Amino acid sequence: MARRKATQPIQEFPLIRQLQHRHERRSPSVITGIGDDAAVVSIAAADWVILTTDLLTEGIHFDLATASLSAIGYKAAMANLSDVAAMGASPRFLLVSIAIPSSLRTTDILALYDGLMTACRPYNVRLVGGDTSASQHGLFLSITLLGTTERKKVLLRKGARIGDSLYVTGTLGDSLAGLQLLSNSHAQGTGTSRLRPADQKFLINRHLRPTARVREGQWLNQTGVVTSAIDVSDGLSGDLRHICNASHVGAEIDVSCLPLSPACQAYGTSTKQDPVVLALAGGEDYELLFTVPEIHRARLERTASQHNFSLTRIGHICAAPLGIHRRLGNGRRKPLPVMSYEHFRTPS
Amino acid sequence: MARRKATQPIQEFPLIRQLQHRHERRSPSVITGIGDDAAVVSIAAADWVILTTDLLTEGIHFDLATASLSAIGYKAAMANLSDVAAMGASPRFLLVSIAIPSSLRTTDILALYDGLMTACRPYNVRLVGGDTSASQHGLFLSITLLGTTERKKVLLRKGARIGDSLYVTGTLGDSLAGLQLLSNSHAQGTGTSRLRPADQKFLINRHLRPTARVREGQWLNQTGVVTSAIDVSDGLSGDLRHICNASHVGAEIDVSCLPLSPACQAYGTSTKQDPVVLALAGGEDYELLFTVPEIHRARLERTASQHNFSLTRIGHICAAPLGIHRRLGNGRRKPLPVMSYEHFRTPS
Repeated sequence: MARRKATQPIQEFPLIRQLQHRHERRSPSVITGIGDDAAVVSIAAADWVILTTDLLTEGIHFDLATASLSAIGYKAAMANLSDVAAMGASPRFLLVSIAIPSSLRTTDILALYDGLMTACRPYNVRLVGGDTSASQHGLFLSITLLGTTERKKVLLRKGARIGDSLYVTGTLGDSLAGLQLLSNSHAQGTGTSRLRPADQKFLINRHLRPTARVREGQWLNQTGVVTSAIDVSDGLSGDLRHICNASHVGAEIDVSCLPLSPACQAYGTSTKQDPVVLALAGGEDYELLFTVPEIHRARLERTASQHNFSLTRIGHICAAPLGIHRRLGNGRRKPLPVMSYEHFRTPS
Repeated sequence: MARRKATQPIQEFPLIRQLQHRHERRSPSVITGIGDDAAVVSIAAADWVILTTDLLTEGIHFDLATASLSAIGYKAAMANLSDVAAMGASPRFLLVSIAIPSSLRTTDILALYDGLMTACRPYNVRLVGGDTSASQHGLFLSITLLGTTERKKVLLRKGARIGDSLYVTGTLGDSLAGLQLLSNSHAQGTGTSRLRPADQKFLINRHLRPTARVREGQWLNQTGVVTSAIDVSDGLSGDLRHICNASHVGAEIDVSCLPLSPACQAYGTSTKQDPVVLALAGGEDYELLFTVPEIHRARLERTASQHNFSLTRIGHICAAPLGIHRRLGNGRRKPLPVMSYEHFRTPS
């Protein structure tokens, strides 16, 4: 277990000082930030602590040939912000670790952190620590985000009950359409040239600069009527299964109700793809999927519209033995397979 | 930023379920552990939160050719436990992320986690989450440890004052000697064959199975007389500099006082190395280095011996302009250069 010396041009301590200067902000809740053996933070006595972490690896989660360092940082932070949003909590403190290959320079690393902190800034998240290291092969990025929520006020995957309505925020499928546009797999001769530039821009932006539904999650938590919640990071069909497994229930999705943006619909038309499939399979939308008892539907929808939050009822929870299925336009039901991405295997 | 599919033999969700089964333990403080969007933990209203994280990369921090997966896990946990110990805090909750190359099998990953949790078990640390991913190149391991300490009771690097005594727990240099024995760099014709097997075993064990000084850190914190503290992870000469920089002071080390184990002394003799140099340069001892005002020395030493804690006074804090120096056996002073390891450059 020898520690081999690296011959990197990046020096660890000067880099840390630069990051500290750029991104460390005073806060009464940060007792000690970057620069001691550990960070020390203070949370309210009435709060619980929310912890989420992601490890992103070059060649698996991102490709330096197609994504900027800033975009990688932004999306990495957003994935973690979205996890905290799905718990109905407030994101508070960030730890960032990076293993840096010799091909990268200090300016690249600063761009990565700029992307990270751009994503975090609207929520006043504080960078309080992390680790930097050399990497012999590729860039690795590990993010840990600590959030807080009032004790006993938290949205979990478990808790959905038979008869609950199933809701989703925003629109689905945009990120996958944006990814396809970026990777150009449908660009040649399949009609994306007929897609308006504004639609293209919208979809690509939804892929590169998604928005975690932090405010929506906090609001849903405060209503006290949400019985389960998850963020749509792997795709609706997969994430719905997580809710069903955790809650020991089944679900029925009405595919005609899935919220589709005009841009995603136009993209589907121009590429001869069913946008419903994009909505069911597409990950990284970072919308919230949640359940609410029937009795609270009307009030939820009314207050959502007062807050200007976009919610769509897309189905309901049924008994576990009924499984997870979709109701088609003609009223027929079909099982809903997982069409999402799982890191270690191809989609089933 | 496409998510490429990996063709790994390890499946993410079954692996997570196995890890959950082996290592997840109920605790009233863990509201939600592995398996939701984030973990939810409860800490006492009177506590502060301590956060530390490390990213370990194959080829830089460990070598799969010479270290077992279990040993890698054990040491990774211990480095983080030691950071929490240096703050005088209690380690509580662990997040572990791994990026797994295709060369590794599920049993390897289970061994890694077994090593991690073996290190954590004495302190009742709970595994509450993490992330698993494929890696195209090499094993990457990211650990985040959350600790707690009573509000306003924390040991920091800053706070050492002129005249304070400088103490260290345990003995220094053993881990470096153990590393040298393992890497065999001094084995050929330089006399390690004259080293008793028991000494060899002791030193190698101190390298592969170090002990974080968690109990000592908590006790030092409780005494209320410690003005600064750090763990010796990069080597005494480097870690002392961190205390001096953070506290804006200088220091004088009396090299004749450095605590050396009999095994380290015997190793120095047999390899014709000055064990003092091993003690000053050797990282990963995970002992605690701390300062105490002169007025509290006698009481500290008395209660340490009551608790059976090994402490050695190795010098004192002086004014910043005097810098950091060592007092040699003949009473002369010489500047003490950093002899420690820094990840991005060769030692200066």
